[in-house]
Parts: sequence; structure tokens; C-alpha cells
Amino acid sequence: MVRITPSSSFSLSLQLSIPNQTGMLAKVVHAIAEAGGNLGNVELISRTRQVLVRTLTVNAASTEHAEEIVQAVRALPEIEVLAVSDRTFSLHEGGKIHIKSRLPLHSQEDLAMAYTPGVGRICMEISQRPERVYDLTIKGNTVAIVTDGSAVLGLGNLGPAGALPVMEGKAMLFKEFADIDAFPICLDTQDPDEIVETVKHMAPVFGGINLEDISAPRCFEIEARLRQELDIPVFHDDQHGTAIVTLAALINALTLVGKSLETIKIVINGAGAAGVAIAQLLQKAGTTQVILCDSRGIISCDRIDLTPQKRALAVETPGPLAEAMVGADVFLGVSVPGVVGVEMVQSMAPAPIVFAMANPIPEIQPELVSEYVAVMATGRSDYANQINNVLAFPGVLRGALDCRAQALTATMYLEAAQAIASLVHPQELSPEHIIPSVFDQRVAATVASAVKHAARVDGVAKR
Amino acid sequence: MVRITPSSSFSLSLQLSIPNQTGMLAKVVHAIAEAGGNLGNVELISRTRQVLVRTLTVNAASTEHAEEIVQAVRALPEIEVLAVSDRTFSLHEGGKIHIKSRLPLHSQEDLAMAYTPGVGRICMEISQRPERVYDLTIKGNTVAIVTDGSAVLGLGNLGPAGALPVMEGKAMLFKEFADIDAFPICLDTQDPDEIVETVKHMAPVFGGINLEDISAPRCFEIEARLRQELDIPVFHDDQHGTAIVTLAALINALTLVGKSLETIKIVINGAGAAGVAIAQLLQKAGTTQVILCDSRGIISCDRIDLTPQKRALAVETPGPLAEAMVGADVFLGVSVPGVVGVEMVQSMAPAPIVFAMANPIPEIQPELVSEYVAVMATGRSDYANQINNVLAFPGVLRGALDCRAQALTATMYLEAAQAIASLVHPQELSPEHIIPSVFDQRVAATVASAVKHAARVDGVAKR
Repeated sequence: MVRITPSSSFSLSLQLSIPNQTGMLAKVVHAIAEAGGNLGNVELISRTRQVLVRTLTVNAASTEHAEEIVQAVRALPEIEVLAVSDRTFSLHEGGKIHIKSRLPLHSQEDLAMAYTPGVGRICMEISQRPERVYDLTIKGNTVAIVTDGSAVLGLGNLGPAGALPVMEGKAMLFKEFADIDAFPICLDTQDPDEIVETVKHMAPVFGGINLEDISAPRCFEIEARLRQELDIPVFHDDQHGTAIVTLAALINALTLVGKSLETIKIVINGAGAAGVAIAQLLQKAGTTQVILCDSRGIISCDRIDLTPQKRALAVETPGPLAEAMVGADVFLGVSVPGVVGVEMVQSMAPAPIVFAMANPIPEIQPELVSEYVAVMATGRSDYANQINNVLAFPGVLRGALDCRAQALTATMYLEAAQAIASLVHPQELSPEHIIPSVFDQRVAATVASAVKHAARVDGVAKR
Repeated sequence: MVRITPSSSFSLSLQLSIPNQTGMLAKVVHAIAEAGGNLGNVELISRTRQVLVRTLTVNAASTEHAEEIVQAVRALPEIEVLAVSDRTFSLHEGGKIHIKSRLPLHSQEDLAMAYTPGVGRICMEISQRPERVYDLTIKGNTVAIVTDGSAVLGLGNLGPAGALPVMEGKAMLFKEFADIDAFPICLDTQDPDEIVETVKHMAPVFGGINLEDISAPRCFEIEARLRQELDIPVFHDDQHGTAIVTLAALINALTLVGKSLETIKIVINGAGAAGVAIAQLLQKAGTTQVILCDSRGIISCDRIDLTPQKRALAVETPGPLAEAMVGADVFLGVSVPGVVGVEMVQSMAPAPIVFAMANPIPEIQPELVSEYVAVMATGRSDYANQINNVLAFPGVLRGALDCRAQALTATMYLEAAQAIASLVHPQELSPEHIIPSVFDQRVAATVASAVKHAARVDGVAKR
């Protein structure tokens, strides 16, 4: 078994009572290190002549590993473990987002303006001039994050309540990276008709819809119908967010190896929401040879198990993934851990580009093929070149809201990808740096600007 | 026409350039007063030897009145009006609520705990132990404010967008008075089946539902069905909020006049959501003689136009409102301006109690009957005894969320009313003070505590 690097996602807070003697803290530190834990902050809580109380932050690799670390510390006879808490659980207590009033309500005067009777004048204005809802309410800056919980991260069908922590996290990202007010809507139905109807019914409050973690192929139908029936932008992040960031990274990777999108052969493994959307966007971007694979191998015309989306992307020749990869210039994985072998990478064309984006464990571990690949990327933050949707969705929705786009178009996605790619300056570009950091503060504004430009070109901007 | 008192709901901000000479500001102040405006703050923006720039806040009585005031100032030859803005419109720009992250997202470590991969552990926990959604997400403190925009304030059927400013205001009140995170859901349908289905589908995120501004009789059916089908509390504020606060005020008014609920005759005018709910709650509280009237007069058994809710409250003898009021101890108006005449009040029993709660203009102006009534109340903040729902709904939902009530019961409403009434100490009680101020900081906590107690008595509290 591959032991995963300890990370803050399995992070402990240990409160310890430690004898006030030389060498005692060192014993604790040693025990944690021996158990494979990564020590973070060490905080002094109180001190007497007998004992020190300290809180230690320790990253582990898994729940079991965290337990091993705690046991290792408990095994030290001099040390008393006062409290153990799981930092990820602690920070989720009570949820991750709140509602905040923009104005105080401390007097009758405040009430009379923000609520009755003054608010009635605002209601009348909107009812007489419907476009004013964008100026006078939250609509113009508010996005619904809609899920049915059918495909939560890589964890499967957890249902609406199980999906809520992800949607709250997404709302935090919208706020942090694009100052968008996003609110989670977790639906207690997985029927496409009911999802479409529900979203249509609740649309008036929102300036945009972000679909999230809805399994394929239902996600395609739901997105298509909502795009048709609503006059606000509808974005399925698992599809288009992933496609935009993948294309952005690929543009820069191709510059490095001196190849062009139009002439290369690309293999995509994984034909769910992300794989299909990547293939579609690559076609819009000018690629001519895309081979899409799923768990049964190449999506080929002779197969009888294909959804309409897969059929539209089918190629002539059937075969397993390994055959598809022979001579390929690019491998894009949005599938499952470990499905790519070293020999498959070795069979690719010279200077191969491999994006192994399965989360949290890639299709192939980067260290296994570092000597064979020209450029490698993953979905992880602990390797170079993290392909992370957060580079795309905040800016895309920011741009769409700012120009009141009535829809999102492929041009908008293409220009968003080019905008992200452009933020890695030619002089910075290297196999270890093909994509900006998620904390690069220029990203969202640059993407938003590109999206607005494309919206105007395509005639979907209302202002 | 009754000229309404100037209020902040029609409030102007005037930016003026005023010659730097003695007496100039006095001219402005005089002109505003002559035009009937109420001057608030006067702020100095800049000063030169020639001119002062000042911003004046002026309350008017209506949009037309505001325009008259501006004209009066413009008519002063020495004064230049630099800018005029409507303060109510200004404060609504961009909406009144925002989403706020409870935690920063400044590092990969933050992301790995609040979002992927750490959040996956929280999702799994909830999917395995569903009750944990209350601890680990926003659900436990979050309420949906649901409307279809069919009965917005007293303004009528403005639709979902026209209702949104009211719902945002309501969200502010929930936050300010009970620290509840409430989010507006304005539905683009007025079909009861579709409303019920939509609310059921989006319920997983919410710990409670507050129905708002949905017209009768649909509101009764929608509330009843949602109560039956959801395991979270459903509160229709227009019904129960109004009923609770009315009963609270009535309890204290009756103490003043030395009468008891069980033996008095009460006339309610208005048989919409509020009137029906008040009648029902009064019956639970022990009254035996309630006569409900609508625009056609007394709701009597012989009428063939009655909804099931009205039929259940019908009395034997038909007649107009004026006849119902003869000998009545209490008049409760939740109807329309001006439908009660002085002679109707004079026909009531000795020491009559009149709550004329139509908004913004009462069923009868208090000054017309001040010498005939024992106690008078309205829905307005500029008269004594304001009957305002904000005394009830924040505390009711706070209590329900805190004890994870699965439903709301009549006992909870009765105890909430008693709790509000109890906050006016016997020594403070007077005809001008039968109900606490909406800014009395004890109210929400006291109501919440009463609601929790009642929930436990009725066996609906999950903790």
C-alpha cells in the first residue's frame, strides 16, 4: 500500500500535560516523528513548576495513522494526554458559512428603511421594472450551488446531506476568490425532471447556477435543460471547470514541448462529466485526435453501451486503454487511482504529457514516471502543477455576473482557459510550473475579464 | 386625505452647496420645515471661504412629498442642490445580506481541511450518521424564508422578484434578533403542489422553514402539507407570528381592564392568514366567543363562499361588521385601512380594547377614538403599542432550532405569547405600554426559552 503523505486533512490537535523537565518535549516530538506524524504548531497553554500544558498540531496520513500517533504519545509514561481533537471535524462544527447583514438594524429608522414600510417601495419598483432586481437585491451577486449528492467528490452517492459540507466549502471558495455570495442547495431528489423543476422554481433569487457533484449522464441532461429554460448562466463545474483548467495547463505544456493542439493525439481516460467536457472543449480548441476511454476501453462506434454524449465522441477503432496510449502525445486522466502503468507511459510519443488528475490518488504516481515524461500534472497540492477547478469557477461566474451574461458559451470557456494559461509568463514556464497557483490573486480577475470579453463577442452579455 | 407623518421610509439625502454666510443654513432649514419635511442629520462635507458643502437627511411622507421638499430647496436662489438621493433605494443597492465564511482560506492547509480532501471525511461521517448534519454543517442554524410573492406586505401579488427585498429584510431580522442564518427562497410558481414539492426537495440544507407572504387560503394547505411531510419546523409567520404577538398584547390589555379571555367577546376583522390564525390561537387560549369577519361581514354558517378554515370558525348569526362589534370587548383588525368608524367603537362594551393592525394605515386612526377606548394598539412604530411580528418569529425559530424541534405546536405558540406578555412588568403596564419594544433585547431569548419548554412538554424536541 502506498502510504500517503501526512496532510492537514487528517490533522490532530493534542493537548498534553508534560513534566517541566529538560528533554520531555523532545521525547514527545521524537515519538510523533517515529510514528510518521508531521508536527505543526506547538503552543504553550499554561506553565507551573511541575508541568507545562501544550497544544500540538500534528498532521497524519489517515484516520488510522492519526490513532497510531495518539497511541505513540500515550505510550510515553511521563506524558498525560489531556485532550485529542480532529481539527477538520472541529472546524466543521456549526458549518462553514454564515449570513451577514450589510446594514445594522438598531433603530426604528433602520427598520423603516430596510424592512417595512420602506422596503415596500423597493418591491414596487422591482415589480414595475423587473431588471431592477439585479441592482436592488442580492440577485446580481448570488449563485446557487446545486447538488443532488449523487457523485460527491470521489466518494460516490452520499445524498444531499452528505454533500452539504462540500457545497459549503465551495461557497467559501466563491467568496474568498471572487467575492461571490454562493449558497448551497442540496436536493432531496435525484430525478432529473424534479431537479430541473426545483431549480427553475427557485431561480429568481439567483444570478447564476453552479451545478456540482451530480453524476453523469444525468448531469448533461440537467445542465442542457436548465441552460435552455433559464435566462441566467448555468455552470456545471465538474464538467467545465475541469475542462477549462485542464486546457489551460495543456496549452502551456504544449508550448514547453513545442507541439500544437491541432496535430497531437490525446487520450482521455474517464468518460464521466469531466472526461466528456474536456473532450468537447478540446475539439472546440482545435484538436482533431481525441480518444476517450472509459472502464471498458476506447469509446468506439461499435459499442452498444454508449450514452449520446459518449457516442458523439466515439472513434472508429476499439481497444483497451493501453492500446490507445501507444504513440499518444498527451494522457489526461479523470478516472481512478493506479490504472496507468509505467510501460503505458513509455509507449507514448516522444516528450509525453501526463495529467493524472484522479483524486486523491492519481492514475499513476508521478515519481514512477518522472524520467519518462516531459510534463506531469495531478490534482494534488503536494506535487507540482496542481490542476484545480478553483482556478476557473470563481472567475467564470464573476465575469458572467458582472456582464449579466444570460448564458455561458464555449467561447467563454476557451478564453477563460487562455487567460489562466497566460498568467504563467514565458520566462517562468517550466515542466514544474505550467499553471498558476490557486493563491495567485490575479487569476479570478483575469478569468472574469476574459469571460466578459467573450460574452460580448457572443452577444450574451446584458450589459 | 390623511397626511402621513414623515418617516425614514421616505428619506432623502440632499447634498447642497451653501454660501458661507450667516443665515444661509437657516434658510434651508426653514424651507424644509415649511414644506413639511423632518430634518435629521446635517453633515459638513467641505468648507471654503465661499461655500460650505453639506449633506442633509430629510424624512418625507411620500415620494411626492419628497419631491416637494426638493423643489422647496431648489427654489432658494442662493442654494445649489448638488445631489439628491433616496436613502431607502441607496441602502438597497446590491442587496441587504451577504454570505460570510467562518474561516479563512489562505493556505493549502486551510483548503485541505475546509475543502478537499479533508471535507470528504465530514461527508462520510454524515452519510453514515445522518443526525451529524446538525453539528457539522450550517443546517442546525439555518432557516429558509420561502415565499411565492403572492401577498407581499399589503401590496399584493408582486411575484418572487418583487418579494425578494422583504425576504432579505426578514433574513436581517433573523440574524439581528436571534443570530439565525436565514436565506430567501423566492419561488417562481404559485401552485401549491409545486411549492410543496420544491420546498421538500430543498429542505436538507435547512433546520427550519419560515413561510412568508403567501396568500390565503393557499398558505393553509401549503403549511399543513409541509408540516406533515417534513421533520423540521415549518412556521408561517403571517399566521402564527401575528397570532402570537396579538395574543401577547391582548393578555396584558385584559389585565389592565380586569377582564378574562374566557368570558369576553372578540371580533376579528380580516379572515386571511392572520385573522384565521389569531382566531385559532385564541380558541386554544380559552376564548369562547370569537366572531370572525371578512369583507362580506360575519363568517356565519349560512354562507356558501367559505373555505374550510373559515367554515371551522363560522358562527350562527350573520350580519355586517358593525353589528358584530356591538357589545364586543375586543376588536382585532388585520384587514384594510379605515373600515372602522368611531360609532362602531362607541357601540362596544365598556373599556373596549382596539387593535387596529392594518399596515401601514390602521382600520381606524388612534387619535379618532382615544377618548373611547381603554387600550389601543396598531402595527405602527409611531404610535404606542406596536404589534410587530419581530417580537415572535426570531425567538420561536431560535427555540425550535436549539431543541431540534421536529414540529411547532399550539402549545409552543401559547407559551411564546405568554413569554412576550410577561416582559411587561406589572408596574410598567399601562394603556400605552402593553407590549415590549421590538428592541427589547430580552425578547428573543425569553421566547426561545418558552418555546423549548413547550417543545419538551409536547414531545417534539429531539434534544
